[in-house]
Amino acid sequence: MTTSTTTFSYSQLRDFTTAIFERMGFSVSDAHLASEVLLSADLRGVDSHGVARLSGYLRLWEVGRINPKAEIKIVHQTPSTARIDAQAGLGLVVAPKAMQIAMEKAEQVGTGWVSIYNSNHYGIAGYHAMLALPKDMIGISMTNASPLVAPTHSQERMLGTNPIAIAIPAAEEPPFVADFATAAAANGKLEILQRKNLPTPEGWVQGKSGETSTNAHALKEGGALLPLGSDTLRSSHKGYCLGAMVDILSAVLSGAGYGPWAPPFVSFLPLPADPVGEGLGHFLGAMRVDAFRPAQEFKSHMDNWIRRFRAATPITESEPVLIPGDIEREIEKIRQKQGIPLLESVWKDLEEVGKKMQVKF
Amino acid sequence: MTTSTTTFSYSQLRDFTTAIFERMGFSVSDAHLASEVLLSADLRGVDSHGVARLSGYLRLWEVGRINPKAEIKIVHQTPSTARIDAQAGLGLVVAPKAMQIAMEKAEQVGTGWVSIYNSNHYGIAGYHAMLALPKDMIGISMTNASPLVAPTHSQERMLGTNPIAIAIPAAEEPPFVADFATAAAANGKLEILQRKNLPTPEGWVQGKSGETSTNAHALKEGGALLPLGSDTLRSSHKGYCLGAMVDILSAVLSGAGYGPWAPPFVSFLPLPADPVGEGLGHFLGAMRVDAFRPAQEFKSHMDNWIRRFRAATPITESEPVLIPGDIEREIEKIRQKQGIPLLESVWKDLEEVGKKMQVKF
Repeated sequence: MTTSTTTFSYSQLRDFTTAIFERMGFSVSDAHLASEVLLSADLRGVDSHGVARLSGYLRLWEVGRINPKAEIKIVHQTPSTARIDAQAGLGLVVAPKAMQIAMEKAEQVGTGWVSIYNSNHYGIAGYHAMLALPKDMIGISMTNASPLVAPTHSQERMLGTNPIAIAIPAAEEPPFVADFATAAAANGKLEILQRKNLPTPEGWVQGKSGETSTNAHALKEGGALLPLGSDTLRSSHKGYCLGAMVDILSAVLSGAGYGPWAPPFVSFLPLPADPVGEGLGHFLGAMRVDAFRPAQEFKSHMDNWIRRFRAATPITESEPVLIPGDIEREIEKIRQKQGIPLLESVWKDLEEVGKKMQVKF
Repeated sequence: MTTSTTTFSYSQLRDFTTAIFERMGFSVSDAHLASEVLLSADLRGVDSHGVARLSGYLRLWEVGRINPKAEIKIVHQTPSTARIDAQAGLGLVVAPKAMQIAMEKAEQVGTGWVSIYNSNHYGIAGYHAMLALPKDMIGISMTNASPLVAPTHSQERMLGTNPIAIAIPAAEEPPFVADFATAAAANGKLEILQRKNLPTPEGWVQGKSGETSTNAHALKEGGALLPLGSDTLRSSHKGYCLGAMVDILSAVLSGAGYGPWAPPFVSFLPLPADPVGEGLGHFLGAMRVDAFRPAQEFKSHMDNWIRRFRAATPITESEPVLIPGDIEREIEKIRQKQGIPLLESVWKDLEEVGKKMQVKF
């Protein structure tokens, strides 16, 4: 397989993606929003969660699993919380709107927390957390996902790669933005190795019977991703705890499909026969910094935190200590200017999408 | 060194510990509370955080770093948040009281979140999170701690083992209680290997210059603990992100000493010369389950979650998939009946404490 790429401008990909979402029946503003969230992944270098997924969303729409006309509906609330029915909407659109509700609650009572059910894949977790930053709030974002990860001691896949993102504002320094899967390695990293026909490092996957494996194709052959920590000696139970926490806050608290009942992302796999909830679940939070401490005071200490960590003595001179969000921000700067490189398989896939929906790519 | 143990009854250790705290000047009720929190660690098998620490607390008190007469003080609040000055109180007493404030806020507006500064070591994170369970709330507990962990790429220790605990109620099943350090292995596990003169597994520690190491004594020789994930290939940056998040929510948000400025637990090390905040920080939260979804409905789905995960096909028949909290609960059952085994070094240390404070052990 090839790994050659062609570079496309942000605006070309955005306009194309927006047009596709409009053809699917999304309103103009929802299509723009979905497209912006999706492209934010490509801009930030999280290629696995960007336009490469467009054809996947399209197939979910084709089988009736995404409702482009959905409006999110608060089914229960308190001053600081809400449970939201996403009505089978697209997570890319659902999550920013739900985050808005969390932030309005934070405006009123200091913090806001929403748990959402009946949703679909919401793109990169970090996008939604970062919505809090301009308001001097701390943003938190989690989602459950199709089961690919085996808990410690399990042969079976029981959890998604269930990401956690947290965005924290600073003053003069760029914000602290952590956004990571609770598996040892996300599926996107496996795909890169698959294309190059390389083995994985130890501790990423296990084989079909739970045996140690470095087979980049292990997932397709019935294996599983491992939780953060990789093995019992290195505390894989902690990664399992984190993935479980995300699953429970996102899906059990909201009423979505949890654990092995989380709906698969791919349209060709059937939905669970005995559902325990509806769709995927997300959990989003916003905390006003000044609900604790004056915002300027906090942000200037964040500057100090960031500068001190950046100045930590590195092991290797050429590899300084990074602040969460540094890498993605650097890639974004470059791609904003130079465009977004797509693998041939990805842009050919987009061409197909364009043909099917009669939109020029 | 010896690893032989002697077993003591819970009530003997509790009465002794309470008497010591009273001698230090704590009120009767605060001494009882501190003792209960401390002993909960021994009961649950987290021996590193139980009575083995009593002499350490005593030394902090001797150098004037713990104020037994402290009353926690809300310095700022909103309906769902509070920033709390612990006035150099003992974390064992501060945290349950602060959790009470979080739960009162949750009672009122759905959730409550408190960030606490000017505190000291608070024992096991899980104790405070579990206070939420009888009220059908989800409890969350984090604390920063003395810097022992090197972020990814760093030679320097910049973060504590900064634990995260979350307690989630179920109906017929016992609750889900995760409680874990964000390092690959907690310091207590290293101490066990030190006593047995054994090397560590790979991925627990690094040497003085950041080199790979399996030396159980690495910390004393200028090395550092590694974040959960262990190395860059297995995503140590995620453990670094988690430890950093705990540090920021507990200490930057509250006004405590953060990162390398967190005060050392041991009394013989000096406090940072250029403090950026006061004492240690904690972050505690409570979310009323029924602020999202009827509590009975949620708890019966938690039962289902727990049963399904327990039933996951294990890799090895003899090692079933566990639910977070299982191991600690089993140990607690046994130790409630049979007593608490203490290493000779620990009970001799308690004898010394008793002599010094004129309390019979």
